[in-house]
Amino acid sequence: MREIVVFSGSAHVPLARSICDALGVPLSPVEIRRFSNDCLYVQLQENCRQRDVFVVQPLVPPTQEHLMELLLMLDAARGASASQVTAVIPHYAYARSDKKDASRISIAGRLVADMLTTAGADRVLTMTLHAPQVHGFFSVPVDHLTAIGELADHFRGRDLSDTVVVSPDLGNAKTATQFARLLGLPVAAGSKQRVADDRVVIDAIVGDVRGKRVIVLDDEIATGGSIVELLGKLTEEGCPDAAVACTHGLFAGKAVPRLRDHPLVSEVVTTDTVPPPAEDWPALTVRSVAPLFAEAITRIHGGESISSLFDGVDPTHGPPQPQLPFAVPG
Amino acid sequence: MREIVVFSGSAHVPLARSICDALGVPLSPVEIRRFSNDCLYVQLQENCRQRDVFVVQPLVPPTQEHLMELLLMLDAARGASASQVTAVIPHYAYARSDKKDASRISIAGRLVADMLTTAGADRVLTMTLHAPQVHGFFSVPVDHLTAIGELADHFRGRDLSDTVVVSPDLGNAKTATQFARLLGLPVAAGSKQRVADDRVVIDAIVGDVRGKRVIVLDDEIATGGSIVELLGKLTEEGCPDAAVACTHGLFAGKAVPRLRDHPLVSEVVTTDTVPPPAEDWPALTVRSVAPLFAEAITRIHGGESISSLFDGVDPTHGPPQPQLPFAVPG
Amino acid sequence: MREIVVFSGSAHVPLARSICDALGVPLSPVEIRRFSNDCLYVQLQENCRQRDVFVVQPLVPPTQEHLMELLLMLDAARGASASQVTAVIPHYAYARSDKKDASRISIAGRLVADMLTTAGADRVLTMTLHAPQVHGFFSVPVDHLTAIGELADHFRGRDLSDTVVVSPDLGNAKTATQFARLLGLPVAAGSKQRVADDRVVIDAIVGDVRGKRVIVLDDEIATGGSIVELLGKLTEEGCPDAAVACTHGLFAGKAVPRLRDHPLVSEVVTTDTVPPPAEDWPALTVRSVAPLFAEAITRIHGGESISSLFDGVDPTHGPPQPQLPFAVPG
Amino acid sequence: MREIVVFSGSAHVPLARSICDALGVPLSPVEIRRFSNDCLYVQLQENCRQRDVFVVQPLVPPTQEHLMELLLMLDAARGASASQVTAVIPHYAYARSDKKDASRISIAGRLVADMLTTAGADRVLTMTLHAPQVHGFFSVPVDHLTAIGELADHFRGRDLSDTVVVSPDLGNAKTATQFARLLGLPVAAGSKQRVADDRVVIDAIVGDVRGKRVIVLDDEIATGGSIVELLGKLTEEGCPDAAVACTHGLFAGKAVPRLRDHPLVSEVVTTDTVPPPAEDWPALTVRSVAPLFAEAITRIHGGESISSLFDGVDPTHGPPQPQLPFAVPG
Amino acid sequence: MREIVVFSGSAHVPLARSICDALGVPLSPVEIRRFSNDCLYVQLQENCRQRDVFVVQPLVPPTQEHLMELLLMLDAARGASASQVTAVIPHYAYARSDKKDASRISIAGRLVADMLTTAGADRVLTMTLHAPQVHGFFSVPVDHLTAIGELADHFRGRDLSDTVVVSPDLGNAKTATQFARLLGLPVAAGSKQRVADDRVVIDAIVGDVRGKRVIVLDDEIATGGSIVELLGKLTEEGCPDAAVACTHGLFAGKAVPRLRDHPLVSEVVTTDTVPPPAEDWPALTVRSVAPLFAEAITRIHGGESISSLFDGVDPTHGPPQPQLPFAVPG
Amino acid sequence: MREIVVFSGSAHVPLARSICDALGVPLSPVEIRRFSNDCLYVQLQENCRQRDVFVVQPLVPPTQEHLMELLLMLDAARGASASQVTAVIPHYAYARSDKKDASRISIAGRLVADMLTTAGADRVLTMTLHAPQVHGFFSVPVDHLTAIGELADHFRGRDLSDTVVVSPDLGNAKTATQFARLLGLPVAAGSKQRVADDRVVIDAIVGDVRGKRVIVLDDEIATGGSIVELLGKLTEEGCPDAAVACTHGLFAGKAVPRLRDHPLVSEVVTTDTVPPPAEDWPALTVRSVAPLFAEAITRIHGGESISSLFDGVDPTHGPPQPQLPFAVPG
Repeated sequence: MREIVVFSGSAHVPLARSICDALGVPLSPVEIRRFSNDCLYVQLQENCRQRDVFVVQPLVPPTQEHLMELLLMLDAARGASASQVTAVIPHYAYARSDKKDASRISIAGRLVADMLTTAGADRVLTMTLHAPQVHGFFSVPVDHLTAIGELADHFRGRDLSDTVVVSPDLGNAKTATQFARLLGLPVAAGSKQRVADDRVVIDAIVGDVRGKRVIVLDDEIATGGSIVELLGKLTEEGCPDAAVACTHGLFAGKAVPRLRDHPLVSEVVTTDTVPPPAEDWPALTVRSVAPLFAEAITRIHGGESISSLFDGVDPTHGPPQPQLPFAVPG
Repeated sequence: MREIVVFSGSAHVPLARSICDALGVPLSPVEIRRFSNDCLYVQLQENCRQRDVFVVQPLVPPTQEHLMELLLMLDAARGASASQVTAVIPHYAYARSDKKDASRISIAGRLVADMLTTAGADRVLTMTLHAPQVHGFFSVPVDHLTAIGELADHFRGRDLSDTVVVSPDLGNAKTATQFARLLGLPVAAGSKQRVADDRVVIDAIVGDVRGKRVIVLDDEIATGGSIVELLGKLTEEGCPDAAVACTHGLFAGKAVPRLRDHPLVSEVVTTDTVPPPAEDWPALTVRSVAPLFAEAITRIHGGESISSLFDGVDPTHGPPQPQLPFAVPG
Repeated sequence: MREIVVFSGSAHVPLARSICDALGVPLSPVEIRRFSNDCLYVQLQENCRQRDVFVVQPLVPPTQEHLMELLLMLDAARGASASQVTAVIPHYAYARSDKKDASRISIAGRLVADMLTTAGADRVLTMTLHAPQVHGFFSVPVDHLTAIGELADHFRGRDLSDTVVVSPDLGNAKTATQFARLLGLPVAAGSKQRVADDRVVIDAIVGDVRGKRVIVLDDEIATGGSIVELLGKLTEEGCPDAAVACTHGLFAGKAVPRLRDHPLVSEVVTTDTVPPPAEDWPALTVRSVAPLFAEAITRIHGGESISSLFDGVDPTHGPPQPQLPFAVPG
Repeated sequence: MREIVVFSGSAHVPLARSICDALGVPLSPVEIRRFSNDCLYVQLQENCRQRDVFVVQPLVPPTQEHLMELLLMLDAARGASASQVTAVIPHYAYARSDKKDASRISIAGRLVADMLTTAGADRVLTMTLHAPQVHGFFSVPVDHLTAIGELADHFRGRDLSDTVVVSPDLGNAKTATQFARLLGLPVAAGSKQRVADDRVVIDAIVGDVRGKRVIVLDDEIATGGSIVELLGKLTEEGCPDAAVACTHGLFAGKAVPRLRDHPLVSEVVTTDTVPPPAEDWPALTVRSVAPLFAEAITRIHGGESISSLFDGVDPTHGPPQPQLPFAVPG
Repeated sequence: MREIVVFSGSAHVPLARSICDALGVPLSPVEIRRFSNDCLYVQLQENCRQRDVFVVQPLVPPTQEHLMELLLMLDAARGASASQVTAVIPHYAYARSDKKDASRISIAGRLVADMLTTAGADRVLTMTLHAPQVHGFFSVPVDHLTAIGELADHFRGRDLSDTVVVSPDLGNAKTATQFARLLGLPVAAGSKQRVADDRVVIDAIVGDVRGKRVIVLDDEIATGGSIVELLGKLTEEGCPDAAVACTHGLFAGKAVPRLRDHPLVSEVVTTDTVPPPAEDWPALTVRSVAPLFAEAITRIHGGESISSLFDGVDPTHGPPQPQLPFAVPG
Repeated sequence: MREIVVFSGSAHVPLARSICDALGVPLSPVEIRRFSNDCLYVQLQENCRQRDVFVVQPLVPPTQEHLMELLLMLDAARGASASQVTAVIPHYAYARSDKKDASRISIAGRLVADMLTTAGADRVLTMTLHAPQVHGFFSVPVDHLTAIGELADHFRGRDLSDTVVVSPDLGNAKTATQFARLLGLPVAAGSKQRVADDRVVIDAIVGDVRGKRVIVLDDEIATGGSIVELLGKLTEEGCPDAAVACTHGLFAGKAVPRLRDHPLVSEVVTTDTVPPPAEDWPALTVRSVAPLFAEAITRIHGGESISSLFDGVDPTHGPPQPQLPFAVPG
């Protein structure tokens, strides 16, 4: 049968290699060059004909360069007669541009989704989109993975007495609730108050955190501003210690010193959907989601259910729950 | 120049008439029939050629019938050589199906958006989508109106001392904040806690409501369950009185008796995006958004800015705010 | 290889079950719910990944509900990574809206065909479209079955002396001619005369029916008006007895009493493309086309010819007839 | 405002000139060349930018050449920034390929419709499609004219006593009925009987024609086989005289001698949707539909109703007839 | 697995037969008819369901007829549920219309590419496009073969001392350079000078040809005008003898007598991408590219690399050349 | 009527300002921001509704950033209900990726053309595409300008005795020939010889340049390698002086010192399609094509011919030349 071929752009080669190691297939080489007019050139160096091609590229800085590389690789794979082309985008950064919250702007999360289809993506494999609605921006099937099982594993087996899971944003507390359930812990959340059109403060913690140890869970940490504000509030509440967990550890700007030097933060755990920060940071643990992506690729290729991969982890990503009565029982 | 022609399906003829009255154009007749095999038949009874055609139809029960009527009218207008066809959908009910929160379901908000385009909609004019991301489901331009200015007008000029605006859901409190600002009031919000996969309770009120009079603001009231739960919490907080305001007053199931008979509720104000409830309900005020839709139609037709219609009302819907420095100043 | 998975909407579950029985595969369960705002929700309860998915749903009343269910199931199957999605629509009711016989109407047969493609149908499997041109409304492959072999089997082995096959409509007599040939019988037809724009009478029978027993064949019986008129004419011609055969036995409105109580009608035979009438009607025989659909599904899945299924039954549906000279012989 | 520009391919320049004369605009020149490899080359010689461009080309032999010319002109007009491009196809020959009446064939009427859209047609203006369903093959608006008013004018003012309108085909007798009504005459029709898969005979005349003078009306005469057969039947019925009227007078093969030399045929009247036969034929009258096409073009350009052009002529092509009760009255 | 099925239009049946012989599969029959209105009708006479269908048709005169045949066959194959439809177009004549070198013309090479996609081609297999950019006109994968290996084989093993390869056009000398390298010969080229907008003369030979024997290589010979002009120049340079080689030997107009009777021309070698000239011409050798097409079809079907087929022949068509450093090594 | 609105990305604001000055319309402001995750954000600050919107952005380094800005602006303009959106791309850098000259690469010139359409471009206005075939990559109308009239004006009125126009590449000498004709000068060209797959040398000058002064004309100068090689050859030929003229003066890498310090080069003239080099370079003259773009925009907006703008300049860009006989004269 048609084989799996995996290519990687230059955004995050180590992740692509880890995925290939877990899959037991080689990472196929790609030549990427830049012309004197700054245009990019990409050549796939492995036969794609009737192959099941996967192109791995998270959208990390320089984001536009990596996006264009990805588009060129998808187009090249399609033109080279791939049987199916999957864009593996562990971090889909443009998902944050998901609404028209001002007039005369582009909803770039939708535009980039359309561009990926234009370039030849038959399918997208991604993880933890910023808002679940972004899934609906794509006209091709999307396999949407979650890392909370992986993050929860980090804490399993430890003494978690007197510990609470805290979400920085009540509006997105659903994932934190599920994460807490995996660890058998209670959950709390910060409530964001809008003080000006462009500034948000956390003015309350909903749920009991007083004196408790906390695990802060967020989907993504960029400059770390929200987390730091939450930590301030937790300090006021007398919390002695905070572990921070997130799926996409971008750690942009001053995020690393901000968190590394914060007295409350005992450790930070994230995944390798994006490259790790360059700074030395002993308290940071990066858990690999490469096995998860490899398993998803295996199942996409073999026609097995991906939702069953998250059975018991998160019902949103898990398989359908039988409910009675069915309208159309078998 | 090409004239405006307005048609209405059978979902909410009075609204269409009000819009036409405000526009100063007649509502053009439509013949809608049902064949013996239950298929629908629609004939537009006014010349559409090179006209600027607007088809008014909120998606209210029986929703599938009304959706099909709308699709048939759009297709008929296109086939009759309309210059531009705008689907005016004051309430886009399928917006609630906006994510894949279970496997193997349709994101119907996206599917219906695609169907509208397939049927010939060049543009959509709507109000208060359930989630702002739903805007990105459409591949045609969407003009997205807000009713909060209209709802705020209801309360203007009254004694609003000791009054707080309360949103049932912290996650969507942004609109309530803007509404409160229009009235010069403080804002508070209920925090929803997920107690089971399919049940949500409000376990706290963020912000000071103790003993205050409140205006509860929500985008849509269907069965009224969330509101009633919030009212219970507000009662515990000693609130003496609650006015309830919402854009889409669907009042499905037992919503009317639940709210009409609730001791805390002094009045309910909504708009006419959907037909009013059949029950007698003296405390209900329905403010018409027909003038707003008429003004939007006038501006769409005349090429004037719609965002400027909401200048000072809501920055999300309002015109761009000049900021310095511009990357590309004029 | 990829397996067959069959789902059914709520339009006609017994037919879907019969098809599955004939196929030897289980009918996979579907959860269909209705939200408080009357929007529909559908969840497929079986893995679709790389499967050959068939969704069974004839368009019968409530037609709009069943159409929307079908669209949601198709979209869900595509989003769940089905390898191929076939809409199995045993009765495509909107085929009757096949022309623009008045201005400013939708050719809904084309619109619904486009909607099915928008929702994700890769192929359509149907039976006896109202007009053969409707096939051309679809941009995806259509497998168009005929039931006349099945209906003819009902009469085989009987004494058919002095019997004539009669088509109510000379314009569509081609199928009746083929049906008659299968039984070795002569054919006749009613000629419709238009007496007003909206009224048609049968004013003559072309062909010799005087004193003969007849089998009336029509593609579809809705209210039964045409048939009853033809029966009147046949009575005038001294016909002692009429059997009535049709593919789609909708029997809407007063069709059942009209036919059941008609003195000329000795029996009625139809198929199960649509659910049978609720009324008690001993003279009605429903022959199942489930084995035919099952065989077609097997052949679609296995890449075998479907036209050869109708070799000797109807040349329109049958395999190419070798003719000499070929322009390009092998 | 944007002006009308009319081009013509080489299929029927005199018709294009007549249309332009009636419109009062010049026929804009086109250069059409053939390369040494037989490929066609077309250059439009008038500015198209923001113009309302009409390209006149009936699909007459050599049909493939004329079709390709048309496609090249449409594409050139689009590429030259025409505001709107209308394919004026007075005779759409591929409409006869309207169904899949054998397996593994193309429904070419649909394919050519899609090719016209691919090439840039925004709209199609045509006359008397072979089957009304062909309208639904187009995804762009179609303005479908009828010539029966023009043909009826030919007979108006004459002594029409003892005259009957006869359609060769009962299945398509609707148009003949409408034509007869315009002249205040009764109508009859031949009933075709299929004697073999590829041969049809007319075995009866439905309606009273005995000893009457007749006007035979058909949509199109190609080789004239059906007409000649009908004339034989009419001779048997003692008809003394037959006028023949048709919209598309192709007169292919031996049609001219067959009809010219037939003892029953006193005159033939047709239109100029296609070029007239080369043979000398005094009994042939060609009435021009150029004024009708010119009026339609004027109305398309000016945004006036085209259906009202056929008010009182044919309700299928005419404006909507007010009916009570409206579902949605103005 | 799904089998290969090969059909041929009427353009060049012997080539299709040769390809089938090389493949070891039968050429499946096609019925092609012409209706009395000159419309074409095509029926594929072999089951296409889930087959890998190849339709062979070079675009040779009568070009429009053959193009339409091809489009009808592609559409029929798609409608008959072929798994994949490949248009095998050994000579894509419309590639010469590749730019807008005058205003208001169609870039027909792009238009025809879009029409092939509209008709159902999933892939195109072709040889020696007039300009390499034409590849980019197609939105589906194109497998672009070269015949220079085949043409070079013709000369291999001969005494090639004192021989030079000459390209008529410096602008396209890249292929001649590669051809010369295969034979170990030097290369020269004519330089075309534009003397008027529509006339080009060769005014110089770049490279040393004085007194040498030459092999003239061109991609296509139509009327032979350029070649004859080059031969005049070569005569002036004292060349004693010229062999002429080309991929597409159209030999239109007076090309055969021009070349056959030219004193310098000792032999002409071409391929069978197009039918050979009818004239008797002993000096003409036609080498078959059927084995090359058969091998390409085998590899398309089997998922093997086609570029590796040209390893060492032409780097443009050959496999990627490993270069260091890779941006993304395996 | 709808007005012109011009926006500019950050690639070349001075050009956009010059175009606006020539048009007499203000340059409308745009806010361009970069999020912490490196994603771009663009907001158009002027009403676009029913306006004729032009977005100016040449694709110059950083090319990917500027391309993404352009896509976001196009999408924003479409979403803001612009009547027509024109991408004004004075230098379309990806045009150089115009063929598949190696396997498994993207033809990026086509891919980017498709992306522009996906983002909402209704039309493209550009200048001097690298190859004329690239025009055919776009599915929307392209207005393709030439700067040779502007460049010729630079030399007009000077003493041009003993001067020859030289093209570096015989293959592209057509433009140089036209340029020479405008100045009444003879033309010559370098002939490029391929010495290795990746290296090209100029081994001859075709045409008489010995001892002459030359004007070297090229479409684009990037690193200047080809020009410098040609200059070496011209030095050998005893040319005393060379002026260099090009449309797109990118001057990448060491191009400025190479040309500035070359003893033969007396002056360099280019246009402002791209920003000028930062280096001090007195011999460089930049002539503005802003008036040409402004005139083209005026004509696009006003529906006047753009080809007539180049009447007498270059027949490729000029209006159709009347030729006799017309196939279809007016």
